[in-house]
Amino acid sequence: MTAAGLPMEVAVEGLPTRVRIHEVGARDGLQNEGTVVPTEIKAEFIHRLAAAGLPLVEATSFVHPRWVPQLADAEQLFPLLGDLDPHRLPVLVPNERGLDRALALGARRIAVFASATESFAKANLNRTVDGALAMFAPVVDRAKDAKVHVRGYLSMCFGDPWEGPVPIARVVRVCRALLDLGCDELSLGDTIGVATPGHVQTLLASLNEAGVPTSRLGVHFHDTYGQALANTFAALQHGVTTVDASAGGLGGCPYAKSATGNLATEDLVWMLHGLGIETGVDLDRLTATSVWMAEVLGRPSPSRTVRALSHKE
Amino acid sequence: MTAAGLPMEVAVEGLPTRVRIHEVGARDGLQNEGTVVPTEIKAEFIHRLAAAGLPLVEATSFVHPRWVPQLADAEQLFPLLGDLDPHRLPVLVPNERGLDRALALGARRIAVFASATESFAKANLNRTVDGALAMFAPVVDRAKDAKVHVRGYLSMCFGDPWEGPVPIARVVRVCRALLDLGCDELSLGDTIGVATPGHVQTLLASLNEAGVPTSRLGVHFHDTYGQALANTFAALQHGVTTVDASAGGLGGCPYAKSATGNLATEDLVWMLHGLGIETGVDLDRLTATSVWMAEVLGRPSPSRTVRALSHKE
Repeated sequence: MTAAGLPMEVAVEGLPTRVRIHEVGARDGLQNEGTVVPTEIKAEFIHRLAAAGLPLVEATSFVHPRWVPQLADAEQLFPLLGDLDPHRLPVLVPNERGLDRALALGARRIAVFASATESFAKANLNRTVDGALAMFAPVVDRAKDAKVHVRGYLSMCFGDPWEGPVPIARVVRVCRALLDLGCDELSLGDTIGVATPGHVQTLLASLNEAGVPTSRLGVHFHDTYGQALANTFAALQHGVTTVDASAGGLGGCPYAKSATGNLATEDLVWMLHGLGIETGVDLDRLTATSVWMAEVLGRPSPSRTVRALSHKE
Repeated sequence: MTAAGLPMEVAVEGLPTRVRIHEVGARDGLQNEGTVVPTEIKAEFIHRLAAAGLPLVEATSFVHPRWVPQLADAEQLFPLLGDLDPHRLPVLVPNERGLDRALALGARRIAVFASATESFAKANLNRTVDGALAMFAPVVDRAKDAKVHVRGYLSMCFGDPWEGPVPIARVVRVCRALLDLGCDELSLGDTIGVATPGHVQTLLASLNEAGVPTSRLGVHFHDTYGQALANTFAALQHGVTTVDASAGGLGGCPYAKSATGNLATEDLVWMLHGLGIETGVDLDRLTATSVWMAEVLGRPSPSRTVRALSHKE
């Protein structure tokens, strides 16, 4: 399916040799689609993503089903993934009750989700920024006791729909706080997709200055303004080796009014492979998976690479 | 229309302070749309693009009407643009007959279009690469005699649909030949959108080594695989200050089977303004123009920035 010999592999100095893609399509993607996908289809999706070589496939969320009906089947889904190493299947956990549910099912990687801005903390968690951190403290403590890996998502690291530009110092403060709680790694989210490459590199440098090493940072860009891949390239130049992406660009329907579009994993893989950066991903298998999921959802994939490759045959 | 204070302006070192956008929507864009747009609408489009601050608005093509029916009205269109400085209105010219037509209408900037690959030279011009250069020689000579600025487009600089990867040495050879003919500037085209940022920077470095200064180079990326803006950022880092883009992403319908998608000017402007790079462009006026043109064409704009901003009101 991939055009023969393309992309041409041309490495440049100063970039990582390998990038770990944190695949969020089955969780962040499906959570934001209008359609509720049956549990068995989700399980097949996750299996196909893992088989395409994605090292981490975020599987589901243990948020209360009332808030995220698309992922209300976590208890039914997780056992269907029993043949996969749970270290490859991060799950979202909002609080201690969610942690209990995740641990009972054998989850080995969890993620909490904080906000850099008060407006989004209020809207998403009905708490202040610090109140949310206080809620996560026992979650992280108990996860660490159970030797479970903890990722901290941080939303609105660049701009906020209510507050506009987000000061870098505020993002740095919350990142430090998440690491102080015990998070193993952080994912810097551009939730509304407004970041540009200089902003990305400046935030990363400011975090380094505050004692946060790049090795503990991932990036999570949205393609709302088409900036996600340029921002990713800028992050790679700063040494970032963990990049979040969503198979087929799931999670932001391009025809919806508020296209919040995740970076499509296929577009990312095209760039990384062109740069000679190893990912372990088989782009053809991944694309075929996204074509299949687009059929399940009844609409074309917003990923440009998926569209280009799937019309080549 | 633009979100207040966004994108946040964060400059980084080593980038140009100003970029000149070469707007190709009215020519390269409309040429590749299925719909033939009435002449008066084209004239209004070009006026609105110029009023939005775009310094160069490629207006039309003097190719034989048989080959490009969408632009068969060049003689009717150009006089409708009489209030605009013709130095702002480049036109495409394939041969001496086309040059005669363009000069008769008062054109002051022309562009010839060459190919880096034999397959595309044959398909697009029914000539060899060198045969096409020979055809352009008298065109460039006579244009220079008339003190008309000449741009040389070079297609397939990164990959070719028939030949696959294109060797950098071949691109360098044709670029040198175009400059030797007398072209004032070159536009390096990724016609099928397969380039990645390392390939871009390596080609630019190779051109410099061959004596081609970056100041005479523009870049022309297609978003077929979602790489256009990342490639543009890579080119800016190499010192490129001329970037081609198409208002609203015109020229590659996202729903067509072969989405050849030009880089959308709005997505480019979002990035450049976020990087603190001056363009002279009013993003709100430009977006409004693309929304209007999308209505003319009866389908949504493929530009993510246009979609995001036009749904904010």
